[in-house]
Amino acid sequence: MPGTAQPPSQPPPAYTPTDRTVPTRSADRASYDRELVHAILDEACVCHLGFVRDGAPVVLPTLYGRVGERLYVHGSTGSRPLRMAGAADPGLPVCLTVTHVDALVLARSAFHHSINYRSVVVHGTAYDVTDPGEKRAALDALVDQVVPGRSADMRGANKKELAATAVLRLDLDEVSAKLRTGGVNDDPEDLSLPHWAGLVPLVRGYGTPVPDPDLAPGTRLPDYLTAR
Amino acid sequence: MPGTAQPPSQPPPAYTPTDRTVPTRSADRASYDRELVHAILDEACVCHLGFVRDGAPVVLPTLYGRVGERLYVHGSTGSRPLRMAGAADPGLPVCLTVTHVDALVLARSAFHHSINYRSVVVHGTAYDVTDPGEKRAALDALVDQVVPGRSADMRGANKKELAATAVLRLDLDEVSAKLRTGGVNDDPEDLSLPHWAGLVPLVRGYGTPVPDPDLAPGTRLPDYLTAR
Repeated sequence: MPGTAQPPSQPPPAYTPTDRTVPTRSADRASYDRELVHAILDEACVCHLGFVRDGAPVVLPTLYGRVGERLYVHGSTGSRPLRMAGAADPGLPVCLTVTHVDALVLARSAFHHSINYRSVVVHGTAYDVTDPGEKRAALDALVDQVVPGRSADMRGANKKELAATAVLRLDLDEVSAKLRTGGVNDDPEDLSLPHWAGLVPLVRGYGTPVPDPDLAPGTRLPDYLTAR
Repeated sequence: MPGTAQPPSQPPPAYTPTDRTVPTRSADRASYDRELVHAILDEACVCHLGFVRDGAPVVLPTLYGRVGERLYVHGSTGSRPLRMAGAADPGLPVCLTVTHVDALVLARSAFHHSINYRSVVVHGTAYDVTDPGEKRAALDALVDQVVPGRSADMRGANKKELAATAVLRLDLDEVSAKLRTGGVNDDPEDLSLPHWAGLVPLVRGYGTPVPDPDLAPGTRLPDYLTAR
């Protein structure tokens, strides 16, 4: 109906597969589901960021934050990948990977040993963020990725700190998840072997928080830490 | 003294730093200590392996195993990095990274938020392993990296499985560890702020093993699982 307001556009429910995001093996373990990708990303705060330096690959662990369909990483303006992205035109080709290991899969045969895992691989170009508003929002997202809710309870970056921090943006566009779930897949003829087989779940969690010895008097442990 | 038997040569206690393994930032967090590198590697079984494909970086999570000064990764002979390494002469340039996250570091200022971590980054060339003995030993090491002692309690790979599995070797030569330990490093003028600050340790462990429903009658949970 002409003149009718359009609803805000929703991103499609899945990312479009590309040559780089369709695996050569175990294609049944791949997924392009947007919600699944977001969920895997939101459960972690450390990724492995790959880039190419002098023709060779470099993979570094680093914190990240997600804001909608954008990921952000940060670092000192003096650090190598940040400098490379700032100098590169148009940006630095990167691959950003996040992995959760959920269980060890012990099969009767060496061949069928495996792990249950969920991973997300993002291919794309990292761009230096120069807009001050986007930079501040990205830094808040990085902190909230570590502890949701924390950015409302800290001193934000001042001008000098902002100037010393470089932020890179990577769009969620060429993205895939890959996961293995379920039990042991031994060959039928191996089932009678006397070796124990099954899953060993891996559990993760937060230990008891250790307050800084110089806390201001009366500072209580915040709810966003006790609720975990 | 001529004719005197030499003692077996010991590797030096530290790896030699190179241009690629000396960080541009936080050089005080870097270490080349061989025992520390081994300890960090031996505490995990999943690494992030980076390689270059069509000029762009690719980072994939994969299992690994350590045998002395060599790391091994494996995969289907049909998988992309394995095929690339087999076809490449002389091997495939890779970067293999292992990371443990030990604690979240919550500072009063956004700027000093951090994590305590230990990581190892290995630069080098991955070679296709063709010697059957080395290949078998590597596959045992991969299983023992997941659960120490397991390789003695499983059916080893048969000829067909061995032929379907490619193994890559990466020497521990150009290697560094990087780690952050300790507490919060807020600026003195921020210490009186009312925000909670401190460490939130991350704990990892093994949940209760889930036996495969088709275990042979009388198969007990092995000691190498109960002892963890």
